[in-house]
Amino acid sequence: MMKDLPDVKDLSLDTGVQELLVKARNEGIATAFDRAVKMSQCGFGSAGVCCKQCLEGPCRIAPNGKGPRAGVCGANVDTIVARNFLNTVTQGTASHAEHAREVAHAILEAVEGKAPYTIQDTGKLKALAQGLGITVEGKGINQLAKEVAHKALEDFQKQQGPLHWLKLKGQTKEVENWEKLGLLPVNAHLEVAKSMARQVMGGDADPANLLLGAITMSLVDGFAGLHMSTDLQDVLLGTPKAVKAQYRLGVIKEEMVNISVHGHIPLLAEKVVEWAGKLKEEARKVGAEGINVVGVCCSGNEILMRKGVNVATNYASQELPIVTGALEAMVVDIQCIMPGLQTVASCYHTEIITTLPYAKISGASHVEFSAERADEAAREIVMRAVANFKKRDPRKIAIPNEVTEAYAGFSVEQIVEALKAVNPDDPLKPLVDAIAGGQILGAVAIVGCTNPRKKQDYDNLTLAMELIKNNVLVVATGCSAHSLGKFGLLSPEGLKYCGEELRSVLTAIGQANGLPALPPALHMGSCVDNSRVADLLTALADYLGVGIKDLPAAGSCPETHHPKAIAIGTYFIANGVDVHVGVNPQVSGSELVVNVLTANKEDFPVTTDGLFGGKLIYEEDPVKAAALIIERIKQKRKALGLN
Amino acid sequence: MMKDLPDVKDLSLDTGVQELLVKARNEGIATAFDRAVKMSQCGFGSAGVCCKQCLEGPCRIAPNGKGPRAGVCGANVDTIVARNFLNTVTQGTASHAEHAREVAHAILEAVEGKAPYTIQDTGKLKALAQGLGITVEGKGINQLAKEVAHKALEDFQKQQGPLHWLKLKGQTKEVENWEKLGLLPVNAHLEVAKSMARQVMGGDADPANLLLGAITMSLVDGFAGLHMSTDLQDVLLGTPKAVKAQYRLGVIKEEMVNISVHGHIPLLAEKVVEWAGKLKEEARKVGAEGINVVGVCCSGNEILMRKGVNVATNYASQELPIVTGALEAMVVDIQCIMPGLQTVASCYHTEIITTLPYAKISGASHVEFSAERADEAAREIVMRAVANFKKRDPRKIAIPNEVTEAYAGFSVEQIVEALKAVNPDDPLKPLVDAIAGGQILGAVAIVGCTNPRKKQDYDNLTLAMELIKNNVLVVATGCSAHSLGKFGLLSPEGLKYCGEELRSVLTAIGQANGLPALPPALHMGSCVDNSRVADLLTALADYLGVGIKDLPAAGSCPETHHPKAIAIGTYFIANGVDVHVGVNPQVSGSELVVNVLTANKEDFPVTTDGLFGGKLIYEEDPVKAAALIIERIKQKRKALGLN
Repeated sequence: MMKDLPDVKDLSLDTGVQELLVKARNEGIATAFDRAVKMSQCGFGSAGVCCKQCLEGPCRIAPNGKGPRAGVCGANVDTIVARNFLNTVTQGTASHAEHAREVAHAILEAVEGKAPYTIQDTGKLKALAQGLGITVEGKGINQLAKEVAHKALEDFQKQQGPLHWLKLKGQTKEVENWEKLGLLPVNAHLEVAKSMARQVMGGDADPANLLLGAITMSLVDGFAGLHMSTDLQDVLLGTPKAVKAQYRLGVIKEEMVNISVHGHIPLLAEKVVEWAGKLKEEARKVGAEGINVVGVCCSGNEILMRKGVNVATNYASQELPIVTGALEAMVVDIQCIMPGLQTVASCYHTEIITTLPYAKISGASHVEFSAERADEAAREIVMRAVANFKKRDPRKIAIPNEVTEAYAGFSVEQIVEALKAVNPDDPLKPLVDAIAGGQILGAVAIVGCTNPRKKQDYDNLTLAMELIKNNVLVVATGCSAHSLGKFGLLSPEGLKYCGEELRSVLTAIGQANGLPALPPALHMGSCVDNSRVADLLTALADYLGVGIKDLPAAGSCPETHHPKAIAIGTYFIANGVDVHVGVNPQVSGSELVVNVLTANKEDFPVTTDGLFGGKLIYEEDPVKAAALIIERIKQKRKALGLN
Repeated sequence: MMKDLPDVKDLSLDTGVQELLVKARNEGIATAFDRAVKMSQCGFGSAGVCCKQCLEGPCRIAPNGKGPRAGVCGANVDTIVARNFLNTVTQGTASHAEHAREVAHAILEAVEGKAPYTIQDTGKLKALAQGLGITVEGKGINQLAKEVAHKALEDFQKQQGPLHWLKLKGQTKEVENWEKLGLLPVNAHLEVAKSMARQVMGGDADPANLLLGAITMSLVDGFAGLHMSTDLQDVLLGTPKAVKAQYRLGVIKEEMVNISVHGHIPLLAEKVVEWAGKLKEEARKVGAEGINVVGVCCSGNEILMRKGVNVATNYASQELPIVTGALEAMVVDIQCIMPGLQTVASCYHTEIITTLPYAKISGASHVEFSAERADEAAREIVMRAVANFKKRDPRKIAIPNEVTEAYAGFSVEQIVEALKAVNPDDPLKPLVDAIAGGQILGAVAIVGCTNPRKKQDYDNLTLAMELIKNNVLVVATGCSAHSLGKFGLLSPEGLKYCGEELRSVLTAIGQANGLPALPPALHMGSCVDNSRVADLLTALADYLGVGIKDLPAAGSCPETHHPKAIAIGTYFIANGVDVHVGVNPQVSGSELVVNVLTANKEDFPVTTDGLFGGKLIYEEDPVKAAALIIERIKQKRKALGLN
């Protein structure tokens, strides 16, 4: 078996992952990396030319120009590719919207005394309430929280007018543009359902219209998904502040009961951390020294940012904490949860515990979680993990020993606070001055995933290194932030890779805050926290009196795998931000769609670049991608009159 | 070109369609029938084993057992097939829900004086209001309509408790069962979005859970889609009564301005009919004798049922009215609209007019329609058609001359009224007695589509003939009803194909109503009017004090092509009704999914038959399908203690 498979060094940059991949192979266990080698991607689907919308098909329009040029119904390749793209954005949007809605309900239940959570950030709550047009004066916190939660839920209910959260958080000039183009979404669920209705066989067949539909969908993703999730989570669970923690598989501790928390909605993860603390005596009873919660993917980000919990690994290697033989339980909620987890876990004592009624895995345990029964559920989960400690097979234990120090928790509030140490009255000024003066060439958010089809962490890291070397400020979220964290870019240690001018700025801000320096990449949070990136861009654009599209900024998703990343990317394109993806976005089958999204033809009449000021950049090579991003940043600088 | 293509006689039973297919071929025009011959179906997709949920794929699990048994993420074939099935049901549901919601908004706008419609069925309105728990006394019609519309919209907004329309229309015993199983949907949009979120990469991976999700989704389809659409349309536009009209392409008239109305939501179709009447003088000015509106697909059904408008053709041959060379305009809204229409129309003078902002076709005209501007839009559409009359190329005109007489309009209200002529005090008794006595063996709804991959109308007709021959009462909706209409089964003429006992019952009821007989198949309406079928079954079950699942009834969709048909079918399975499909439902790749849906293995622990009393029957041969349906009807009769 091993003969067919590539060297583990070609699958991940992470030596701990490499080590456990060898172990898994020796034990005859397949992981996502090896499955990716064995599973060939469908060439039609990879080009976006496969249509599965009805029982006349599936039809496929060969991208080589041979064979029929339309499906049975007459849909041509442009319609099919554009519709598939809309579907991808819709999938991502539905996920983020349901995430936000869960948190809104949790707030309601909390303030009604039904769920064991307490509002943590009353300042942010008041600011949100004010922004939403709610009278703040004379109202208690619970009342305010209730009204904010109701406003949030209206964004899933109302039948006319744009999303409240779009009016709250959209940058004025960008909102004007969307309104002019008739793209404002009404409510999140309505738009998802309408998008599904328009994609249906015999629905929308105009590729340009379908792509505009993807823009509307992405506005739902951005406002009723990302922004609303972040805002409400900060209110309920606290707004992140800078924290220090550790990365890599070495954070799993042999002498502890280890629980990894994996998924996205932090309501669960927070409670598991809380109960792990409360139940440590139980762990001692079974011979462990305590209970060690480690993070995976975005649930990992959420508890890293708010609780300083260490991070074991990111998406592509999510099965490997199990392979250490020392993981008692992996608790999951939804999104990016590989069904393969259970297959791997069945070779060990690890218990996979699903928690949402609409996201189960055959063979896994299920402990139903809801805000109302958060304590009971979290307690049961932790107790199960404790009980599993004695089931370990000592011969199977092998924990890679590396860990890396990292800083996280750079919410916009935290960034502004750090800048206030430089200029208390006008905190954005030092940042804007550094950009204007060229010490900071521009800013790029490195976001998204890792993908078992790409050497894990390599592109995320390489792109970041190229950018900081060229004095581009890097912020990071999601599994990409984990990539940077594992390799020292979330620590002042990584400053050595920066261009001199960026290094001096980061050092100055850091020192004003009593630190040796800020890290070269600022970890801004989970995938929904790309809202924080947007908030930062909005603040800068407002400060300068321009649109977001005018800023020398870009986004990059070098190792993407998930529809959510495409939804987020589309949201940033709609905001006028170029978005690089390092994985085939599966639209190549339609020249029209490629032209619209990438603006690769100068004379093409309609492009996202023309309409919004942002475009898609598809480049698999991270060094070339960095060059393209920097080139565009320089163009945007020039348009602003900057050198 | 023609050498490669099959004889047109093998593509459709309809000689008019055959004639125009030859014409199209001679003119070098491709239609859906010929595209279906040239486009091979993907073997993976046809088995449901293709997963396009993320950029690690598309992955495919070969149904022959060779190659990898899981996708990159570890999803196995059962997860993939079940998820694809849920996706299909979700697509259909989203379409029907958006249909219902459009009508609810139209009612609101109408009663607020913003849209030019007037409540037509005040009796049904009052009954609905009462059923929904609205106080009727002392309220005017507009007020009642407003409250009913608001209740309808709540089914797209509320955050807890089951759908109002489910409580209103669900059969008591079936509702109890769904509640027991935890399957009750909360609101239509929420459930669609949640379904999308659960389907997303790394979401629900438990095939049984995904299939239960499909059941919940189908309840949304049934109640917030089908029932709500029918109920509100009847209130706004009138409840259908028996009408006589004509079928087949011969309904297009050379001397008239011909407009075909195609799609689903009757708000548009009704207004086009109205304005065609108002503007006939305009037609005379351009040399035509008048304006002739003809129906296609379900918009055709709606105006057939309520206005007696003739039907030109059904789904698979929708391009052929254009090929007559005498069609001035084809007006479309959404669903089942082939993009190929525009390609064909570009060879003629026909103008394709799209009307919804989220359903356009490249190259077609667009006249935006909404309830508020219904009159302006309909007027413009008709005037465009009139203007196109002079653009005809006389050399291209060839209209097949056959027409067939048919009766339609058999709403439940109409059926009950007909039965009252037999027994005024207890109208269901004659029907129940006939079933109990075996004069009627059972009842089958033949519903759904035609599909260019199947010989058009053949299976719909053959199955109906087999059933009525065996004394099974046939009701029909959608494009299947059109199939029966074209070949005389919607007319008393068709009675000769009935078994003797069924014939005598239909003759007796017909004669009690002053007719020679009822037709052997009762046309109950459009696809959303499958709600009427459910209402009839509910009335019978309630009368007998049993569940719908206990009735000797079944549904059949012999020539299905659309996800909506799968959603409707799943809804009937959830109600305990066996549903036959004559087209591969694309689940064969998973033995588990096949076992659950078809109950083909006696010892399989979980099946829809076991949970609900209804199962999927997949049989391509309509004669064999009829035998399977009849066998099951006999089983259900036996369980009821009937011979």
